[in-house]
Amino acid sequence: MYADAYIIYTFTAMNKYAVIVAGGSGSRMGAAIPKQFLLLKGRAVLWYTLETFLSAYEDLQIILVLPVEHTETGLSLARVTRDPGRIRLVSGGLTRFESVRNGLELVSPDSLVAVHDGVRCLVSARLIQRCFEQAAGLGSAIPVIACRDSVRRVEGTEAAISSPVDRSALRLVQTPQTFRSEVLLPAFRVPYHPGFTDEATVVEASGTAVHLIEGEDNNIKITTPIDLVIAESLLGGV
Amino acid sequence: MYADAYIIYTFTAMNKYAVIVAGGSGSRMGAAIPKQFLLLKGRAVLWYTLETFLSAYEDLQIILVLPVEHTETGLSLARVTRDPGRIRLVSGGLTRFESVRNGLELVSPDSLVAVHDGVRCLVSARLIQRCFEQAAGLGSAIPVIACRDSVRRVEGTEAAISSPVDRSALRLVQTPQTFRSEVLLPAFRVPYHPGFTDEATVVEASGTAVHLIEGEDNNIKITTPIDLVIAESLLGGV
Repeated sequence: MYADAYIIYTFTAMNKYAVIVAGGSGSRMGAAIPKQFLLLKGRAVLWYTLETFLSAYEDLQIILVLPVEHTETGLSLARVTRDPGRIRLVSGGLTRFESVRNGLELVSPDSLVAVHDGVRCLVSARLIQRCFEQAAGLGSAIPVIACRDSVRRVEGTEAAISSPVDRSALRLVQTPQTFRSEVLLPAFRVPYHPGFTDEATVVEASGTAVHLIEGEDNNIKITTPIDLVIAESLLGGV
Repeated sequence: MYADAYIIYTFTAMNKYAVIVAGGSGSRMGAAIPKQFLLLKGRAVLWYTLETFLSAYEDLQIILVLPVEHTETGLSLARVTRDPGRIRLVSGGLTRFESVRNGLELVSPDSLVAVHDGVRCLVSARLIQRCFEQAAGLGSAIPVIACRDSVRRVEGTEAAISSPVDRSALRLVQTPQTFRSEVLLPAFRVPYHPGFTDEATVVEASGTAVHLIEGEDNNIKITTPIDLVIAESLLGGV
């Protein structure tokens, strides 16, 4: 009982940050507008992401990382959220690693930090909370889901040899990838490496194993026009 | 020129079959109705699949494999398609392998055979045609798409150790998996093996490599209630 109460006290006292990365140029959408600013029922994709994080915890601070040319758009989006005072803007870098590192400069010690894709706008407040709770106890929480399709591995170029892969051992990785700051901050004090595909791989490169938790089927990334249609129906229908 | 004309002549003369497997019990949907019979805009999921295959080629024959207890429902669905005379029903087995093998008993030599998941009801006629064309020339055509999420491999049980996987080498496998009959029929004359997760793995076990082609993002499997919402919006919106 005492231990539980202590953990709850510690958790409440810790700073909570969400570094929301929205650096995409939108080239895959065939649209001039970067995908984080595309409209879903009249609101930008990124607005939904910001709103859900703000609603997850009253004391959560958002660090929004955007390409410098989109600062104005980012500010105007932040202004129409429920609590603009909890959102700060930071300029993105050339890679996701650099963008996240820029965002982490605003994170204070003894914090919990969630790093999230701005285009995963259907994330639920409940998943955000589970990530923070698990990361507080275990150092990290990486949401993953099972892979529902059969999977094959191709060797070399496109038309080449392929072989089946056991999908039961595979997990598709989502965000928010959430960490205690003493795990995440030191891991980012290294030069960029092409193996850094997400925050989990950066933390692992620093010698710390990461902890996987159950993600959400709905927590999709908006990367194609079809995804916008899907997201619109999920927002309305579920 | 002569060679092309010959291929076109051969292709036209070949029998075309689609073995549509709809054996699921629907347990993952939390519904009493098996997922292939759930309604999308007032029509069963399986109805859309049947219609699209019938529309792909005037001379394509469908072999619909259903659990014996769903024969009546299957027949009544077939009756409201554009051409019920091209649909025959066959009873399913305990495994997908057995179900497909039952269906293949109705396939004549010198044919092209597509094996398709009944719950992939958003497949396009164009993808079906590309599968048949490629399989005619190359012996097989397995539609696959790139994996858009980061991927990890878990070792042993759930909370265990995991490691990143290079997703650029992975492909998610779809259906219709399409073959020349002289490749597919002999491959199925073996006892069931747990490694037979789809038709590609059966054909490979017979010593023949399979050929991958580009699938479609929309060609999803209806396995959760969310998928129904998604499918409904894709049917209406794209």
